[in-house]
Amino acid sequence: MGGAGRAPTADFDTYVCEHALVRAAVEPAWVRVGWSDGHHGRFHHVWLRDNCPCSACVHEGTKEQMFELPSVPDDLRPADVAVDGSALVVSWEGGHESRYDGAWLRAHCYSDGPLAAAAPPPAVTWDRSTLVAPPSFDGAAVLGDDDALYELCVALRDVGVALVRGLPTEPYTIASVVHRIGPIRETNFGVLWDVRADPDPESNAYTALALPPHVDLPTREYQPGLQFLHCLVNEAAGGESIVVDGFRLASVARDERPDLFELLTTLPWDWANRARTSDHRWTAPAITLDGSGRVVEVRAGNWLRAPLTSVPFERVEEAYAAYRWFLTLSYDERFQVRFRLDAGDLMAFDNRRILHARAAFDGAGRRHLRGCYSEREELTSRLRLLERSRRARSIG
Amino acid sequence: MGGAGRAPTADFDTYVCEHALVRAAVEPAWVRVGWSDGHHGRFHHVWLRDNCPCSACVHEGTKEQMFELPSVPDDLRPADVAVDGSALVVSWEGGHESRYDGAWLRAHCYSDGPLAAAAPPPAVTWDRSTLVAPPSFDGAAVLGDDDALYELCVALRDVGVALVRGLPTEPYTIASVVHRIGPIRETNFGVLWDVRADPDPESNAYTALALPPHVDLPTREYQPGLQFLHCLVNEAAGGESIVVDGFRLASVARDERPDLFELLTTLPWDWANRARTSDHRWTAPAITLDGSGRVVEVRAGNWLRAPLTSVPFERVEEAYAAYRWFLTLSYDERFQVRFRLDAGDLMAFDNRRILHARAAFDGAGRRHLRGCYSEREELTSRLRLLERSRRARSIG
Repeated sequence: MGGAGRAPTADFDTYVCEHALVRAAVEPAWVRVGWSDGHHGRFHHVWLRDNCPCSACVHEGTKEQMFELPSVPDDLRPADVAVDGSALVVSWEGGHESRYDGAWLRAHCYSDGPLAAAAPPPAVTWDRSTLVAPPSFDGAAVLGDDDALYELCVALRDVGVALVRGLPTEPYTIASVVHRIGPIRETNFGVLWDVRADPDPESNAYTALALPPHVDLPTREYQPGLQFLHCLVNEAAGGESIVVDGFRLASVARDERPDLFELLTTLPWDWANRARTSDHRWTAPAITLDGSGRVVEVRAGNWLRAPLTSVPFERVEEAYAAYRWFLTLSYDERFQVRFRLDAGDLMAFDNRRILHARAAFDGAGRRHLRGCYSEREELTSRLRLLERSRRARSIG
Repeated sequence: MGGAGRAPTADFDTYVCEHALVRAAVEPAWVRVGWSDGHHGRFHHVWLRDNCPCSACVHEGTKEQMFELPSVPDDLRPADVAVDGSALVVSWEGGHESRYDGAWLRAHCYSDGPLAAAAPPPAVTWDRSTLVAPPSFDGAAVLGDDDALYELCVALRDVGVALVRGLPTEPYTIASVVHRIGPIRETNFGVLWDVRADPDPESNAYTALALPPHVDLPTREYQPGLQFLHCLVNEAAGGESIVVDGFRLASVARDERPDLFELLTTLPWDWANRARTSDHRWTAPAITLDGSGRVVEVRAGNWLRAPLTSVPFERVEEAYAAYRWFLTLSYDERFQVRFRLDAGDLMAFDNRRILHARAAFDGAGRRHLRGCYSEREELTSRLRLLERSRRARSIG
């Protein structure tokens, strides 16, 4: 044992706790641990055994568990516990010994209720009266500097939309930006896709038509969580970009028309992307709530709906009434933030929250955007890594 | 009007109905339509207007809607309806005229209740007593013949696992097979990843350790729906592949231990893939039910759990008791179908349903699998396309 050095942890993070571990005692169902600031934590026996970080229980390279719970009795108890330097030491009946870093234990102390789950914090929503323009970041900084990347990622998480200005206009610049965050999600439209007026379009996006507010691919169980659009050329008159905070729309619906909000969150719509070489459909309400009633996802895209056949016959009219009201709300200018993308600009947004739109443009002027998708969880992974290295840096 | 030719439809499918459209009448909230076999359909006015397939309402190339519901009054009614050949013709108050193909209308008739949604049919689950070996398909046939591909896709949808035997062992063969279905999903492990004993492994998968039954990436909100593993070399002793039907485990849990089933479907677990260059976490129960109580997803992977901090303190022991029971069930040989992958064999499975495992192998013998992910919805899109062309072929 010897007291020297810190106990290993089963991850790559850095844990700091200003308060020393001062006492530990075995109680019938848990070990009670005390820190110097008076905080007490209780850790169930089974939880502690499951989280033993020793090199027999956790692979030292992968930090992944090798221990399996069924290999020990379900009533396993500590024979003894002790504080050794900054570590809690548990000697188990039957012989195994576990050492837990005190700062790690403190960071995982669940005694006072569940810790925040993996889901992002509640969004602060916006409309045109509060958001003049999406937060904008410098292209070179985002490509080269982790602090700028971090700011971009935070804006994407919290505001849901951000612009990167002054990027190169090379065909694969967009991939360089997105790969700063994570992998690109390929779909039937390709890894990268081009938005321009096409004589034989596969989607209304590939015409000069106005596109009303929508998310991309509401037709999938897994709507892409992130969308990126990089402007390579914009010599067309018109074609302004528009963003709408779908979570704000949902919150207005909840406040002003709780009757319709109820319909929008419960009655399914049928969505479809039907093309010659693919046929994607999904059935889901316009607004998705999580188990605690929080809005986590919006689906919208007038022209991406299939004929509605998934609601009971006698509810079709109310489904349409709610849908019409919500669609009209999304077209209301007080929710629309407008801006022009010039060559070298990239817009990034949470495609499960933010509706985007474009004004019609003059098909005679050249306008070319390249786009791609990624996922919310790639953003949160990147944020955790950037925070991990900021923490390590701040500790020195 | 003229009666000649069929009305267009807003999709790429082929519709056939043996029964003629024989009558149509406007009623207060809907149009009543009759076919020669006595079937009556009722289609709400708003539904019909929304689904007008004319070239002013639907783009002829993309088959996507340009019409927007808010552009017409919400009490719009037909001025007149008529049957014209095989079409229903609706003349709207205010002047627009819509023509609907009778077979299309019949296929979308929702009068007698919701039609089947986009979700797949309920799975027929299996265990070792009913499934001797996963359905196997010939590699050359799968690569070259759409009927073989269709059979493979149906097996993947219904059984959840299938083998393709006798493929080439080129590094990109796996991509050729998967691209027969749809795009590959890239993750932090890459587009294609290699499973072999690695001296500096990023995951326990990249060791010679036994891997107990698990799904890949339960650490994501979007667990990959499909996984593919292509064996390039297998000269190692051991390393047999094992599959377990997670939906069968869930069904056993529901039948034998409804108390634990309740805990498994409601108490969240914390999952994590923490590495040097990524940090993915998600919090979700081991078994996910849809709104109607049907099992749609299983999460399992003993070593992919983070320390449990998302359940209330007083429920930790029951969470562990349920988890231990379910984990032990998944290790029970009566659920495990075992087989050996030889060079040129590929296993494909629904990674949100099927747990896979491997026996430990002798790290001295070469063993090399290449893997990748895709999504359930790519499979369903491919199935719809294959069915679309089978239908078109059968009509001639």
